[in-house]
Order: sequence, then C-alpha cells, then structure tokens
Amino acid sequence: MLIDALHGLPGVGVKSAQRMAYHLLQHDRHGAMRLSQALAGAVQTVHHCTRCHTFTEDEVCPICLDPGRDARQLCVVETPADQAAMERTGSYHGLYYVLMGRMSPLEGIGASELGMELLTRRAVDGVVEEVILATSFTAEGEATAHILGEGLRQHGLVVTRLARGVPAGSELEYVDLSTIAHALADRR
Amino acid sequence: MLIDALHGLPGVGVKSAQRMAYHLLQHDRHGAMRLSQALAGAVQTVHHCTRCHTFTEDEVCPICLDPGRDARQLCVVETPADQAAMERTGSYHGLYYVLMGRMSPLEGIGASELGMELLTRRAVDGVVEEVILATSFTAEGEATAHILGEGLRQHGLVVTRLARGVPAGSELEYVDLSTIAHALADRR
Repeated sequence: MLIDALHGLPGVGVKSAQRMAYHLLQHDRHGAMRLSQALAGAVQTVHHCTRCHTFTEDEVCPICLDPGRDARQLCVVETPADQAAMERTGSYHGLYYVLMGRMSPLEGIGASELGMELLTRRAVDGVVEEVILATSFTAEGEATAHILGEGLRQHGLVVTRLARGVPAGSELEYVDLSTIAHALADRR
Repeated sequence: MLIDALHGLPGVGVKSAQRMAYHLLQHDRHGAMRLSQALAGAVQTVHHCTRCHTFTEDEVCPICLDPGRDARQLCVVETPADQAAMERTGSYHGLYYVLMGRMSPLEGIGASELGMELLTRRAVDGVVEEVILATSFTAEGEATAHILGEGLRQHGLVVTRLARGVPAGSELEYVDLSTIAHALADRR
C-alpha cells in the first residue's frame, strides 16, 4: 500500500517505490513521519496566491507583497520552478504571474483552462505596462506564449518574449541548427 | 518543507522533489493525502517478523506461517525485494531469513550489527537442515555470505550458496570474463 502510494509520484517506478519504502521503514522512520506530516500540512495550507496564482500559504505571496519590486513588469511563467529559476538569475525585479501549466490541445488544456481570464484581469490593473512571456521554448510553450500574447495585446499592453539564442558558455559548433538560426534572427 | 521531506527519499534530488511537490499540489492532492496516510500507517503497523525478520504487519509473516513450505530449507537474503525476486522464480519452496542489510565494514556493519545471533537462533531450531545463502554477488554480499557461512557451519548445518554463472539468455561473447571464469569453475 505504501509502495503503491510512492509509485504514484511522478518519475517513480515500482522498483524505486520498493527501494524507498524499504529505506524509510528500515533506516528512516523519522523521515517517513516527517514526509507524512509535510504532505498533510501542504495539502491543507497551500493554495494559490490571489495575485500571481503561485503556491503560497498566505493570501498573497511574499513576492507580490514586496514593495521593492517593479509593479510595471509582469513576467508570465509556467510553474513555480520556472519562477524560481528566473529569481536565481537575480536580474529580474518585476512581478510574476504563474500559469501552473501550459496549453496542451492534446490534453484539452486551452486558454480558458489555463486561466487566461485571471491573467488578463491581473494584467489590466492599470499599473502593469509590460508583460514578459517566459513560457518554455517547446512547441506547447511557444503556442501558449503566442495565444496569451494575442489576447494581452488587445488590451493595449506591451508584450515581449524572452530571447531565443545560443546558451552562455556553449561553442557554436555544438549548438543545434534551429537555435543558431533563431539567435541569428534575434541578433542585436 | 514538503520539498525538503521529498528530497530525503533515496534517489530523489532537489529538482525531482520540486517536480513531485508541484505535481502533488497542482494535480493530485488526493494522492498526496493517500501517501501521507500510507506513510503514517506503515510507520505505526510495520515491524519485523519474529521468525524471518522481514517486514510484516503481523507477529509472524504469511510465508513463515504457510504449512506448505519446506521448513528444512532456510534461504538467507539481504532485503524483502530480494526475497520477492526469489519468490517470483517459483522454484523455491523453503522458508526465508531476511537480513535487512549486508555487512559493510566501511559503515561499521559487522556480523553482530546484522543480527548474526538472531539468524543463528532461527537456524538451529532442529528443523532447518540446509541454509542457502542468497546474498548479492557483490564484494559486500560475498563477504556477508562468507562470514555467515562460517558461523552456521559450526552448528552442524549444511550451508550452500547460489551458483554463480552465465545469466540465462545471454550470449557468451557479451558476458564479462569473471562471470565466465566462475561459470567454468562451478560447472556441473
């Protein structure tokens, strides 16, 4: 039963689940209880920030409440992990909107399922001037950026997209052709 | 906090833990609660079988209680997963003793830490005639088998070891040399 429940985690197969259950019961019962409580606690207390839609235990998350952030910029990302990656760069000081997903026609996730309305309501607060689309550079992420961009421009917002290009530190010889082509097109 | 607790699972890095937390909170809160309860339940109810030392929720595990098993054979394995692998072969009908580990001098796990005494007490019940050592064929597993074997032979028990050899279905050309050498030495 514990193995079944662990097997339900993303990326955990039956063998890994067995190994985890064995490890927890044989060597780390304290860790098992800690995980049990963390799960129950998170399910009870974690919900969406009413401003940026990310996970938070508060009504509004700490970033949205931070008066030091530039409220004229709104960066749209897919997940809290993507938001954390942006934060780690230390070069963005605006606010965020976290989609908690991306469009995926195959899974029946369109603009409305993704909360396009919520995003629009957030973006037309009269303070936001620029929306920076930072969804993934995959087919689904690009489609998401395209459709969100179209909708937001209708409200008179400046909509930009992260630049595509050659990753820092890579030798051109080993970069794939479509990346080089995009880097050439987006040159500045 | 949930991410920290998930990160404590064996084989789960920070990124995987983030992905798991995101998945559970965004898409599977029911699964999160199920896992929480399975963990708490297992910590409370799972302990060691008083006969074979494997995990069980009962005083004595179902295999040890099965009157259809041959009580004259006792197979020593390292973990419940190894026991399960033996069971899947369908060709062993004796009983088991599960070490719940293996000797590891580097980690300070010797014969006494591994419960040599418990195993000996189990093996000298007057019914067991043969002890089959089915620990891993790694350096630590081999050392474990060697030391357990020495101790058990002193009590007049027949001690055997699983045969080393060429895996079923493999072409000799692709089998490593030490396996072939062992298969040659153990030929019959």
